[in-house]
Amino acid sequence: MLLHLSTWSEVEGFLTRSKTVVVPIGSNEQHGPTGLLGTDWLCPEIIAHEAQKSGDILVAPTFNIGMAQHHLGFPGTISLRPSTFIAAIGDWCRSLSTHGFEKIYFLNGHGGNVASIEAAFSELYAEASFAGRPRGFACKLKNWWELKGVTALANSQFPVGHGSHATPSEIAVTQWAYPDAIKTADYAPKIAPTGPIREAADFRARYPDGRMGSDPAQATPEKGGDLVRAAAAGLLEDVAAFAAEVSPG
Amino acid sequence: MLLHLSTWSEVEGFLTRSKTVVVPIGSNEQHGPTGLLGTDWLCPEIIAHEAQKSGDILVAPTFNIGMAQHHLGFPGTISLRPSTFIAAIGDWCRSLSTHGFEKIYFLNGHGGNVASIEAAFSELYAEASFAGRPRGFACKLKNWWELKGVTALANSQFPVGHGSHATPSEIAVTQWAYPDAIKTADYAPKIAPTGPIREAADFRARYPDGRMGSDPAQATPEKGGDLVRAAAAGLLEDVAAFAAEVSPG
Amino acid sequence: MLLHLSTWSEVEGFLTRSKTVVVPIGSNEQHGPTGLLGTDWLCPEIIAHEAQKSGDILVAPTFNIGMAQHHLGFPGTISLRPSTFIAAIGDWCRSLSTHGFEKIYFLNGHGGNVASIEAAFSELYAEASFAGRPRGFACKLKNWWELKGVTALANSQFPVGHGSHATPSEIAVTQWAYPDAIKTADYAPKIAPTGPIREAADFRARYPDGRMGSDPAQATPEKGGDLVRAAAAGLLEDVAAFAAEVSPG
Amino acid sequence: MLLHLSTWSEVEGFLTRSKTVVVPIGSNEQHGPTGLLGTDWLCPEIIAHEAQKSGDILVAPTFNIGMAQHHLGFPGTISLRPSTFIAAIGDWCRSLSTHGFEKIYFLNGHGGNVASIEAAFSELYAEASFAGRPRGFACKLKNWWELKGVTALANSQFPVGHGSHATPSEIAVTQWAYPDAIKTADYAPKIAPTGPIREAADFRARYPDGRMGSDPAQATPEKGGDLVRAAAAGLLEDVAAFAAEVSPG
Amino acid sequence: MLLHLSTWSEVEGFLTRSKTVVVPIGSNEQHGPTGLLGTDWLCPEIIAHEAQKSGDILVAPTFNIGMAQHHLGFPGTISLRPSTFIAAIGDWCRSLSTHGFEKIYFLNGHGGNVASIEAAFSELYAEASFAGRPRGFACKLKNWWELKGVTALANSQFPVGHGSHATPSEIAVTQWAYPDAIKTADYAPKIAPTGPIREAADFRARYPDGRMGSDPAQATPEKGGDLVRAAAAGLLEDVAAFAAEVSPG
Amino acid sequence: MLLHLSTWSEVEGFLTRSKTVVVPIGSNEQHGPTGLLGTDWLCPEIIAHEAQKSGDILVAPTFNIGMAQHHLGFPGTISLRPSTFIAAIGDWCRSLSTHGFEKIYFLNGHGGNVASIEAAFSELYAEASFAGRPRGFACKLKNWWELKGVTALANSQFPVGHGSHATPSEIAVTQWAYPDAIKTADYAPKIAPTGPIREAADFRARYPDGRMGSDPAQATPEKGGDLVRAAAAGLLEDVAAFAAEVSPG
Repeated sequence: MLLHLSTWSEVEGFLTRSKTVVVPIGSNEQHGPTGLLGTDWLCPEIIAHEAQKSGDILVAPTFNIGMAQHHLGFPGTISLRPSTFIAAIGDWCRSLSTHGFEKIYFLNGHGGNVASIEAAFSELYAEASFAGRPRGFACKLKNWWELKGVTALANSQFPVGHGSHATPSEIAVTQWAYPDAIKTADYAPKIAPTGPIREAADFRARYPDGRMGSDPAQATPEKGGDLVRAAAAGLLEDVAAFAAEVSPG
Repeated sequence: MLLHLSTWSEVEGFLTRSKTVVVPIGSNEQHGPTGLLGTDWLCPEIIAHEAQKSGDILVAPTFNIGMAQHHLGFPGTISLRPSTFIAAIGDWCRSLSTHGFEKIYFLNGHGGNVASIEAAFSELYAEASFAGRPRGFACKLKNWWELKGVTALANSQFPVGHGSHATPSEIAVTQWAYPDAIKTADYAPKIAPTGPIREAADFRARYPDGRMGSDPAQATPEKGGDLVRAAAAGLLEDVAAFAAEVSPG
Repeated sequence: MLLHLSTWSEVEGFLTRSKTVVVPIGSNEQHGPTGLLGTDWLCPEIIAHEAQKSGDILVAPTFNIGMAQHHLGFPGTISLRPSTFIAAIGDWCRSLSTHGFEKIYFLNGHGGNVASIEAAFSELYAEASFAGRPRGFACKLKNWWELKGVTALANSQFPVGHGSHATPSEIAVTQWAYPDAIKTADYAPKIAPTGPIREAADFRARYPDGRMGSDPAQATPEKGGDLVRAAAAGLLEDVAAFAAEVSPG
Repeated sequence: MLLHLSTWSEVEGFLTRSKTVVVPIGSNEQHGPTGLLGTDWLCPEIIAHEAQKSGDILVAPTFNIGMAQHHLGFPGTISLRPSTFIAAIGDWCRSLSTHGFEKIYFLNGHGGNVASIEAAFSELYAEASFAGRPRGFACKLKNWWELKGVTALANSQFPVGHGSHATPSEIAVTQWAYPDAIKTADYAPKIAPTGPIREAADFRARYPDGRMGSDPAQATPEKGGDLVRAAAAGLLEDVAAFAAEVSPG
Repeated sequence: MLLHLSTWSEVEGFLTRSKTVVVPIGSNEQHGPTGLLGTDWLCPEIIAHEAQKSGDILVAPTFNIGMAQHHLGFPGTISLRPSTFIAAIGDWCRSLSTHGFEKIYFLNGHGGNVASIEAAFSELYAEASFAGRPRGFACKLKNWWELKGVTALANSQFPVGHGSHATPSEIAVTQWAYPDAIKTADYAPKIAPTGPIREAADFRARYPDGRMGSDPAQATPEKGGDLVRAAAAGLLEDVAAFAAEVSPG
Repeated sequence: MLLHLSTWSEVEGFLTRSKTVVVPIGSNEQHGPTGLLGTDWLCPEIIAHEAQKSGDILVAPTFNIGMAQHHLGFPGTISLRPSTFIAAIGDWCRSLSTHGFEKIYFLNGHGGNVASIEAAFSELYAEASFAGRPRGFACKLKNWWELKGVTALANSQFPVGHGSHATPSEIAVTQWAYPDAIKTADYAPKIAPTGPIREAADFRARYPDGRMGSDPAQATPEKGGDLVRAAAAGLLEDVAAFAAEVSPG
């Protein structure tokens, strides 16, 4: 069930059978010569939308701009500062909590978001901790590539040159979902370099075409479809486990 | 051209022929018994995506959560505080500006966003004004229903009961784009009450089913299609005028 | 009754007969070759002080610095950033609310303040909306030129060249109240240009002497007096209506 | 010269002969059974306005709401939080600096403001210090009762029962300026208690009628006039010394 | 009792006999040619640790970075902005309050901290004042040199050239505690100049070797020991008085 | 070399041979029945201070309060909110950068700090990325238990019951450094439970004595000494590698 295509009374109905909501979250940032700028928010959106076709989960609108300051040297990247990102995640969760959601599950598509999202959870929990009261809801972050079975599949598909940015697995997922938007390029070098991540100017100097450690030429829509199906199944299982968790005390 | 389905080098190419970007912006909030929660961000997204099919404009990802604090009494509403919203709009604009965009055009779908978006523009301009330097980019806000021809068309379609929230025109637009998500209900009263907007508890007491002044039963997908075509044409014209504006001095 | 010339026990007494307070709010910013820098806060102060002579309203101190970033290219302008302005309006309202005021009425003298003031109201309401509780007070913004009868009078006084900044009507109001501070100048052109409002450098380039669309030479103290009397009467009526409003539910 | 009754070009002219501006700053807060709520911003305003009649100084609008959280238990008090106050002082100074003011002199009327004002100065200086550059302007805080000759005069006028809040000296100053707003009351005890300052509830419990250590019954308009004349002379001298200061290096 | 060398249950035990905690607070900043960068946080730490050997007080970890923006022109200085400092002090106090501490005593070692610390207290109190409720804890700031007997002793030890920064008394205290870290230098001039404090560039130009008004050559470990013993005794007495204070009402 | 026991000119001298500074960073929080509240800031401090005895590194004062909101249910815990923590880390780094430090190395002692510290780095980098300029310095975070050889040693010392909070390895380190502060207790159960981390009330309900997955009874000062020596050696090697890194482009 897609929240944005539902009415408020449909969501009210959903809350009578579940207190859990899934938020796809990602980033809009350069993904090398052929990766779509939307890759990191499209992947969790594609997976969550696929999963809700076969499972009774509620999927919120996609949080499509994340923490991508290091990619700002490449046109089309849009980033929040961590402080803004933390404030916005907080308002999303506070909003959902007012309706009675007790489990807020973020399906993430961007490694660079992880620290800020976890800091945002702590910021929300701290409000309750300083006040000496229960928070009333729990948050969970899961990267889509860490869903059950996904990493193993990606490793078998791309044993060499998977890398960490503009990876063939994420590009394959978007190829499957947006076949009209498949791009090609000659990659030089075939496998991109690796190294640390700092400010945008440093990033562009280290990684001239935007890739980190990856060879995206290996992506195909078929591999993407396999990844989406594995991830969607893993998501339903992981959300069910989170929803079933009981608070202590 | 959709930014999120493009690569960074395609955006780099676009920048050689235009310095203008269009950002659909809205809100995810209750829209009465039959309106989709996504209505206010779907409408500008639908219109902007339609427009870019026939005009060479660049459409950014949709800014889908806005200032909807007054709707938080209804499940599914997600809102930013104005301060968070202002910070986030600022980071979007600062990001786009680093790439050389000089005109940032927000196509808005939610009246409740207007004050915060304009305050965000002033916050951005103030950084330059306090520093005594040019800002380097200009921002513009346009509500989709104020695009040329749209209000006249909506008035002719819905001479009575248009109202100001969960209007038949916005619901018609989403019906045209998402025909599988059309909902029906008996409205009582036929035309909803009107009044002031304050905090969520006050709002729900005044407007029990969420509508303000509207009779959404008049919406049809056909009327929606007419509105989208009018708005898309109006958008291309308005964006062209904004892009053509020359800075003084 | 002027709050700043009262004691706390006099205000305590006022609260037994009314829960409404009027806050004149404006800006301190250039007003062209002859307009006083204080024009935008003096006008609502003059009107509110006049009104309280004949009606039992409580007038708070004047909030004299607003959002005027675009005027910072002209000496004497003092501006808050929107974020600071929003925080300050919040603290004023929170303060007044602790005393039991339930209706806080802002009589505004500066168009550039509107977005930030409305965003400030939403920020205040959002605190309650996120907490799922009533706010306890309502805010209202009214521009003095929108009080009953004022625009019609100004249109009849200044059918041509009223403009939108450094207008003959606002200058007339200050001339009536501060006859010793009337200034004269040769205006070239007679009617100033119009256009968009952006950062200070852009503003000064577009509007070299600070006026927008106006011909202030038409102002006279007599016209100002007529405007003040009309506005004061309109204010008493509008405040009474706001005070009489009953909360739903 | 009063900035708010001047035009921007008159301020431009003033800047050719001086880079110094005086800002009266105070608080709007309870002042015991007979003190005006505006006392703490009226006093510096009265003194500065008196001083500019005989000296060529530029007086900005009065910053009339300060840090008075401890007085919020008494109706009519309006307070900023220190964080808001610091942000607002910062924006005032940044605004004035854009025009070329190099010395910003705050004439203060409220002891409770001192810490926040000094913290605000440090916040402004820190921007430059972190950037390793000169700030371009200097700030100075002076309490009006510390101007040359004033404390000695007040001690001679009120050798007993001067106290620290709702003092006879500040009340005398407002009596001189606003003789129509003189209030009387029976004070019990004659001299109010003293002690620490904490949150509003604690304050009201300690100081039931709002006074701290004072016997305001001693105030007279005549004593107030003497204080104003002494303070105005002291202000001109102190501002001149500040204006004459030369930066090192 | 040192909090950081205790377990949580030992602190729980302490709370059954006292609700007071002592926080040494200072700054890490240049202290002239021979003063340690840590001087201003080491002094209150040394004194508080000494005091807890003979009195049953609980000493929290040292808050070692304060407001030292003006010293940033000298290597090794680390400063918080006032706004950051205020936020951090707030979180410390909120944390301690959750455990039941009702009296939070800051023993300060840096004059430049005073305004920000007092503003932080007001910020904390204001939360309660705006909410119309008791705060639940009281804060106190004491500079170590103002403890009973300390100033008199320092005056007798250093009748000339004590000054206000890199003073012989503070340097003596660190010499007593860290005899292996005693440094020497030729001071020119013998007694440093005095003047105002502004941004870092201005400070370094005025005070080339970092001292203000002082002749640190007079410091000896023996004098430092005498100061520490006097201050430790004064601290125990002052903390006891604060702990014994009863709230009104 | 310990920064706080050095003078500014000694730091100036250090900067001629290295641009790298090491900041021990941790948290002050409950560590189960026997662990010291200071454990998480003492461990990196102990290791860094040990390392500087044999290597020419500069060690800054210890950042002793971190993100420990989940431990606030246990007396003695002091926590910053993530937003405060991020602001404070930012000011530390900006301060150190003004002196010419180009590599800022944080040796961390608390897993709960990681997200906020990394978010703080991104916040700092983002300032430069939004401005399109190099940052001028690089930050690195290393948990002390991830230094070369340390995890292997801890695994061999504590093959069972190491756990993740109040671990025998961290307690052993503090036992070695503070033998007078060794505490004992009967642990029930011997090995503490594991699970998720949320707000403080939830944490205390899940982990009644504060431990997570650990059996601290295995700690000895001797094992602690071995860990410190391994970590100190690993630190020198890791800092040298970071210092030797060359920026691209």
